[in-house]
Amino acid sequence: MTQVVDAVRTLSVSLDERSYPIHIGSGILGEPRWLMPYLAGRQVMIVTNETVAPLYLERFKVGLSDELEVRELVLPDGEQYKSLEQVSRIWDALLEVGFNRRCTLIALGGGVIGDMVGYAAACYQRGVAFIQVPTTLLAQVDSSVGGKTGVNHPRGKNMIGAFWQPKAVLIDTATLTTLPPREFSAGLAEVIKYGLIRDVAFLGWLEDKMAALRALDDEVLVVAIERSCRLKAEIVAEDETEQGVRALLNLGHTFGHAIEAHQGYGNWLHGEAVGAGMAMAAELSRALGWLNEGDVARVQAIIEGAGLPLEIPNDMNAEDFLSRMRLDKKNINTRLRLVLLKSVGDACVFDATPSATLQALLEDFPRR
Amino acid sequence: MTQVVDAVRTLSVSLDERSYPIHIGSGILGEPRWLMPYLAGRQVMIVTNETVAPLYLERFKVGLSDELEVRELVLPDGEQYKSLEQVSRIWDALLEVGFNRRCTLIALGGGVIGDMVGYAAACYQRGVAFIQVPTTLLAQVDSSVGGKTGVNHPRGKNMIGAFWQPKAVLIDTATLTTLPPREFSAGLAEVIKYGLIRDVAFLGWLEDKMAALRALDDEVLVVAIERSCRLKAEIVAEDETEQGVRALLNLGHTFGHAIEAHQGYGNWLHGEAVGAGMAMAAELSRALGWLNEGDVARVQAIIEGAGLPLEIPNDMNAEDFLSRMRLDKKNINTRLRLVLLKSVGDACVFDATPSATLQALLEDFPRR
Repeated sequence: MTQVVDAVRTLSVSLDERSYPIHIGSGILGEPRWLMPYLAGRQVMIVTNETVAPLYLERFKVGLSDELEVRELVLPDGEQYKSLEQVSRIWDALLEVGFNRRCTLIALGGGVIGDMVGYAAACYQRGVAFIQVPTTLLAQVDSSVGGKTGVNHPRGKNMIGAFWQPKAVLIDTATLTTLPPREFSAGLAEVIKYGLIRDVAFLGWLEDKMAALRALDDEVLVVAIERSCRLKAEIVAEDETEQGVRALLNLGHTFGHAIEAHQGYGNWLHGEAVGAGMAMAAELSRALGWLNEGDVARVQAIIEGAGLPLEIPNDMNAEDFLSRMRLDKKNINTRLRLVLLKSVGDACVFDATPSATLQALLEDFPRR
Repeated sequence: MTQVVDAVRTLSVSLDERSYPIHIGSGILGEPRWLMPYLAGRQVMIVTNETVAPLYLERFKVGLSDELEVRELVLPDGEQYKSLEQVSRIWDALLEVGFNRRCTLIALGGGVIGDMVGYAAACYQRGVAFIQVPTTLLAQVDSSVGGKTGVNHPRGKNMIGAFWQPKAVLIDTATLTTLPPREFSAGLAEVIKYGLIRDVAFLGWLEDKMAALRALDDEVLVVAIERSCRLKAEIVAEDETEQGVRALLNLGHTFGHAIEAHQGYGNWLHGEAVGAGMAMAAELSRALGWLNEGDVARVQAIIEGAGLPLEIPNDMNAEDFLSRMRLDKKNINTRLRLVLLKSVGDACVFDATPSATLQALLEDFPRR
């Protein structure tokens, strides 16, 4: 499944006729040979944001053949711009330059850019090619696999969207040198999550390499990103449209979404909320008798080692959590479904947590 | 493939796991047993327009189980409202009542409602169920098969959309009694088209039954609609995402789109422009030596017999056609691709029409 070429690792995401490669390496953003095979035709539109454009747009364009018709569109940066209005700007730009069904959109940026450009591609003339070039750790290990695209609605995150697969994902680990350390830590939350839900060997490796990862050692980064994408790809291939096992990817997310929503999006980063949420899931798994105290300490240590919070906000009481958690869109029935740990490296979906146990967790969990 | 139950004909559109039935009969709009098996859950939103609502909304709701949570949304009527703005109103309404991924949207109306509701369903929470209840002949024989959904953009028709299949299509021939005769004739253009492109026996049957069809004889209507849907379904099953044989469905459409666009949408109905366009395609096929004069006369007779125009607008010259035809989104290359008739009942795609031959057709074709 994985091959190494010039220190670039390539992972294939298997989805029948919609399969695609993820190329991971340092510096590949400036090497068009990694891009060219996946273009549908001559027409190429690079969509990025105001933060990423000055850092990487010129380097990305260097060496692109003169025979291509390359256009660019720079959108504002931030989750608050993940809207239908901004996606409409992409469609307007495509129609203004007369791009046809053989055009290719390129998403150069973090998860917001990836989700919006993917959605724009899914619906332009009922579907055109797109390529993801994620520049944040979170987007590299999370958004680049799974085909989820979309935008927020004033009444809820990611409410409008489509499943649409990229033709390729190009991950340049060198882009992480310009990522704020706090955002790098937030991305690590998802990396740790993959180990916790189904790969205890990977978790052990991460414990060993945490310092090298946080020092942005390229070789270690490539391995961590490749393993994360592979674990997610395996889960997605088993469950492309999110009916079953994919739910495990929500470890820490039900608690985390409650924190994000209560604190106001952007005050706690998604990964920070997921870090604290995974600590809560571990503690609840202990209360149910599945983990022992040593297991919980191990989970806490790696979360803390990644620079992520172990405590929850001081101004949130148990009811603040419960009211948000009941709104979560994964809850089709009235019972609260949580992803918990049967053991370290083995997650499960559980909808029979006694309410007194949950209540005690939410009341007693450490605040800061 | 076809079965008859209580004078209802059922046709199955085969698309692997996205296969769905089309039920065709008089009066089924008021019989919930044809609807209930296809609902994804309790939450149902009926979307219709201001013209159809007073005629059929109450009848449609009669007998729907009290256990369902039924909501309705009435949009303005007309092609000019086939916009992202109106689709956003559907999403707003769904979120306002808190509908989840198990909801079902019902499109009660013509092609505009069907295309918009299908698109809203394709993208709500990345895809929910929808059921089509087409109330115009055009929507019944054209939009109910193929999975094309979407909206117009100021710069082009159907530029934003998705392929998304309904869970079922319910066609009530009794709704045609309230359709203006001019729109009925426009729908017949597509029925005739299916015969011309690949079913000469059906074309002969239509020649026989034209008077009964236009008198809205239910038995004859059911057969004509079922055969039209079956022919389209066969073509779509062969070519779901429009790479090859599906192009034959554009017989008369390249000329027709030029007429519609030049005259302003709504002044010539789509089916009227397609009728004249098919007459042009027949004449051009004769000029290329494929049809004889008798064939052309036969094509003209059935178009005229359906109440459709044989002449093109007096104020359009050859260049008016050519400039519009070159813009058609099916033309990926610079060569003009046209659907023509090798014989009556056998269409082909041809991109080598000598420009002098085309020029002569466009200059000499009868005007009114």
